[in-house]
Amino acid sequence: MTVAFQGEPGAYSEAAAYQCFGNGLKTLPCVSFGDILSAVENGRADYAMLPTENSIEGAVGQALDLLAQSPLVIEGETYLHIHHCLIAHPRASIEEIRKVYSHPQALGQCREFLERRAWEVTPFYDTAGSVKMVREKNLRDAAGIASKLAADIYGMEVLVEGIETNRQNFTRFFIVGKTPQPTAGTNKTSLVFRAVHKPGALLNVLKEFSDRGLNLTRLESRPVLGDPWTYSFYIDCEGHQNDLMLSNCLKAIQTHTTFLKIMGSYPSKTLTESPRV
Amino acid sequence: MTVAFQGEPGAYSEAAAYQCFGNGLKTLPCVSFGDILSAVENGRADYAMLPTENSIEGAVGQALDLLAQSPLVIEGETYLHIHHCLIAHPRASIEEIRKVYSHPQALGQCREFLERRAWEVTPFYDTAGSVKMVREKNLRDAAGIASKLAADIYGMEVLVEGIETNRQNFTRFFIVGKTPQPTAGTNKTSLVFRAVHKPGALLNVLKEFSDRGLNLTRLESRPVLGDPWTYSFYIDCEGHQNDLMLSNCLKAIQTHTTFLKIMGSYPSKTLTESPRV
Repeated sequence: MTVAFQGEPGAYSEAAAYQCFGNGLKTLPCVSFGDILSAVENGRADYAMLPTENSIEGAVGQALDLLAQSPLVIEGETYLHIHHCLIAHPRASIEEIRKVYSHPQALGQCREFLERRAWEVTPFYDTAGSVKMVREKNLRDAAGIASKLAADIYGMEVLVEGIETNRQNFTRFFIVGKTPQPTAGTNKTSLVFRAVHKPGALLNVLKEFSDRGLNLTRLESRPVLGDPWTYSFYIDCEGHQNDLMLSNCLKAIQTHTTFLKIMGSYPSKTLTESPRV
Repeated sequence: MTVAFQGEPGAYSEAAAYQCFGNGLKTLPCVSFGDILSAVENGRADYAMLPTENSIEGAVGQALDLLAQSPLVIEGETYLHIHHCLIAHPRASIEEIRKVYSHPQALGQCREFLERRAWEVTPFYDTAGSVKMVREKNLRDAAGIASKLAADIYGMEVLVEGIETNRQNFTRFFIVGKTPQPTAGTNKTSLVFRAVHKPGALLNVLKEFSDRGLNLTRLESRPVLGDPWTYSFYIDCEGHQNDLMLSNCLKAIQTHTTFLKIMGSYPSKTLTESPRV
């Protein structure tokens, strides 16, 4: 089985793939979110690991927009606990480090750790890519910040593990594939819609859920491309689209929306069901 | 007058400052959004230009979170039309270009333009910073992608202007300062709240607006730090917090919220009132 992910080998998205599918897996690194979805569409991969939100940074907007236009469906979800590691050459000691490279988001998330040291901090385009670069350029006084997996892949060493300021750092991924999932024990359904252009339209949509006691677990608004300050709304709700109550709700909200797409119903996972990586 | 902005000199945020306040202005480049707010708090700047949403990329989440915790207020808003420029050394011709550097978001927004060329495209941490780097390293076969202002500041030349795929690329900025603004002709009010933990709580908040005919122009959800998958909601609505109707609404929603902060009432601008830069 092959799973496509966005980023350099060792990216957190690759760690999420191993968390879901175990170590027997083949992974396919891709440049963009669009590429991982294409890889599934054209059969080069069975699944795409698509990050959808992070507990600190919020929604991954571009991923949501692509999914809204994709013929693929959400088959599952997983939560990855993000542990940033300070990674350098084997046998390097922390006293030798003068420079640190990583993605600006990771640097920001490790701010308290970094502020205690007089290191030169330089933004890099990718977390795992920063470790790869430190190795390839043989920078003996430098470290990258990335996943433990990145250290393993590039034969580098974790100097300090868990250097993030906020330990509640989770990324939620959609497992995207071709096969709509049947009803499981507990389910979630993800949908996207645009409300009709009149006051209270969004309220009317939300009321259809509320009137049926259907719990929303997420609500995001995203700008509509080419139509500034018009919004699409992304909703996750408890239940399967084949459940009678949710099925009726989805029919009812059609009258309040100009565009409605069910992106998938899938077994729901909780934070604690996702093991640490 | 001094206006703080985030980024290297020539950043789009600096262009937004000139758009609002004219050319007589002194600008203060800062490393982070937190730094621009601190600069206003400690008197080193009169205003901070804080990006709040982009018509393609969506909300600037970190900026919203900082504003929610800041003692400062929103005094105004402005919309900047983003025109990406291909920028190289003076007298360079486009035929000599082999490499292009810019922030990944800008590279993504210019994808169609770049795909027509066999250039090596490399992500860089900042748009204006990429132009600065191409100049400082004297890279004669390279270009950066940034604002026209960046070309002017670094003495570089715009080879092609407006290379973005989607022409409807606007960034909305909050003008953040210390002085609550009085009622103007047309106003907007920005607020942030957390809904109480029970089904339909968000709905009840939205209903208070809807029942009074108060129009929402924006609704964003953001994860609450340290409390995974609990959300804050950011709302912009038409009207001033001193208007009777809105004032009553704000009192009413207190019963449905665990946290409520009015970030400011300010004169509202439309897209077309913001001149091109």
